[in-house]
Amino acid sequence: MNGVEALLFDTFGTLVDWRTSLIDDLTAFGDERGLRVEWPAFVDAWRNAQKPAFARIARGEEPWANFDAINRVTFDALAAEHGFATVLDEAARTWCVDRWHRLRPWPDTVRGLERLRARYILGTLSNGSFRLLVDLARCAPLPMDLIFSAESFGRYKRDPEVYRGAARLLAIPPERIMMVAAHNDDLQAAAAQGMRTAFILRPTEYGPQQTTNLAADAGIDVAVTSVEELADRLGA
Amino acid sequence: MNGVEALLFDTFGTLVDWRTSLIDDLTAFGDERGLRVEWPAFVDAWRNAQKPAFARIARGEEPWANFDAINRVTFDALAAEHGFATVLDEAARTWCVDRWHRLRPWPDTVRGLERLRARYILGTLSNGSFRLLVDLARCAPLPMDLIFSAESFGRYKRDPEVYRGAARLLAIPPERIMMVAAHNDDLQAAAAQGMRTAFILRPTEYGPQQTTNLAADAGIDVAVTSVEELADRLGA
Repeated sequence: MNGVEALLFDTFGTLVDWRTSLIDDLTAFGDERGLRVEWPAFVDAWRNAQKPAFARIARGEEPWANFDAINRVTFDALAAEHGFATVLDEAARTWCVDRWHRLRPWPDTVRGLERLRARYILGTLSNGSFRLLVDLARCAPLPMDLIFSAESFGRYKRDPEVYRGAARLLAIPPERIMMVAAHNDDLQAAAAQGMRTAFILRPTEYGPQQTTNLAADAGIDVAVTSVEELADRLGA
Repeated sequence: MNGVEALLFDTFGTLVDWRTSLIDDLTAFGDERGLRVEWPAFVDAWRNAQKPAFARIARGEEPWANFDAINRVTFDALAAEHGFATVLDEAARTWCVDRWHRLRPWPDTVRGLERLRARYILGTLSNGSFRLLVDLARCAPLPMDLIFSAESFGRYKRDPEVYRGAARLLAIPPERIMMVAAHNDDLQAAAAQGMRTAFILRPTEYGPQQTTNLAADAGIDVAVTSVEELADRLGA
């Protein structure tokens, strides 16, 4: 990829295994409290509520809310639906929503980022809240030079202004920036702003029955199965 | 400092020795080209032009321009004034302005930041352009968790909105954030927004005849002479 100077990474699914991390943490949390909850279904519903919330904000039907605020509203609704809302106090709810700040990386993530960082400027470009991404970068850890959050721009991906705003602050033309994601729609939105694109296959991000994002769309510049393979392909 | 979670650092003077770095780089640059220029005076005039430029933007007399753009305009004017404008091509000018992205840290900076980072979230909060701060963090290096630039907020320090915007994105109440700077006015502006403050004495930032910022103002929470001493004081 001649001329690429910076790589911007989607985070949930691309760098961290949100589903397994949350199921593990919440299962332990529930077991301690004797809660009988179908945690995989709970976590899938939690994740699935995010995109519609972003869309309502994008259409102006709801005011801006950051990722943590959206997750808190959904958590409270799901806790009520699953019949355990009454047994959780404020501290317990905060702890559960904060699990999104403590997600674990895929096995190839940290080593791959370390290699890439020696050669490229690395940043997040994620719908996660700014603080969440700082916490993830410290804890996972995710070796990054900078944190871009949707919150920095007051809009969620796939709004073009998120990709444009990142390129503007980096002072790098979009064709010398590569967006890296496990999701074709994110990469299409980046490509529409002139960025290069790399697809990382994460076939179990959404669980064993995943049916989407199992292959890169036509036109994606690079398709790999790990961050380490991306480092190989980019000569890092 | 009970309860402090994040430290935000001014950069020029506080973490990097802009004056010596620029004088050294430009002297070497001039020697190669046989330019006879009083580089210390040139560099001091270059630095002194920044604050008035920020003020003109703050008063709405000039549209937003980032730190690099301001430095380029001043460089061109000073080159003309010193009689060497005609011998510099575009690449040479770009190289000179880019020296601000390659400033060297004070001897205590890197080790002090490494120690502090083990315990606190560390960020820049600087008037430098976003890209400049990313480059400095990679090259100096400055071990940081995040980069806040005036450019992220579209205003320069000491505008209150810069400090407020940083606290909002961090999702940390200002009283649990400590601003660290070698400049009392920066710390006063941070304190006015409720932040804690740490003064680092840099008695030769402005050269051997420095007369300002030789002591912390009354009301500053912590006064030290190095980043390592700050780490000592904060138990890191």
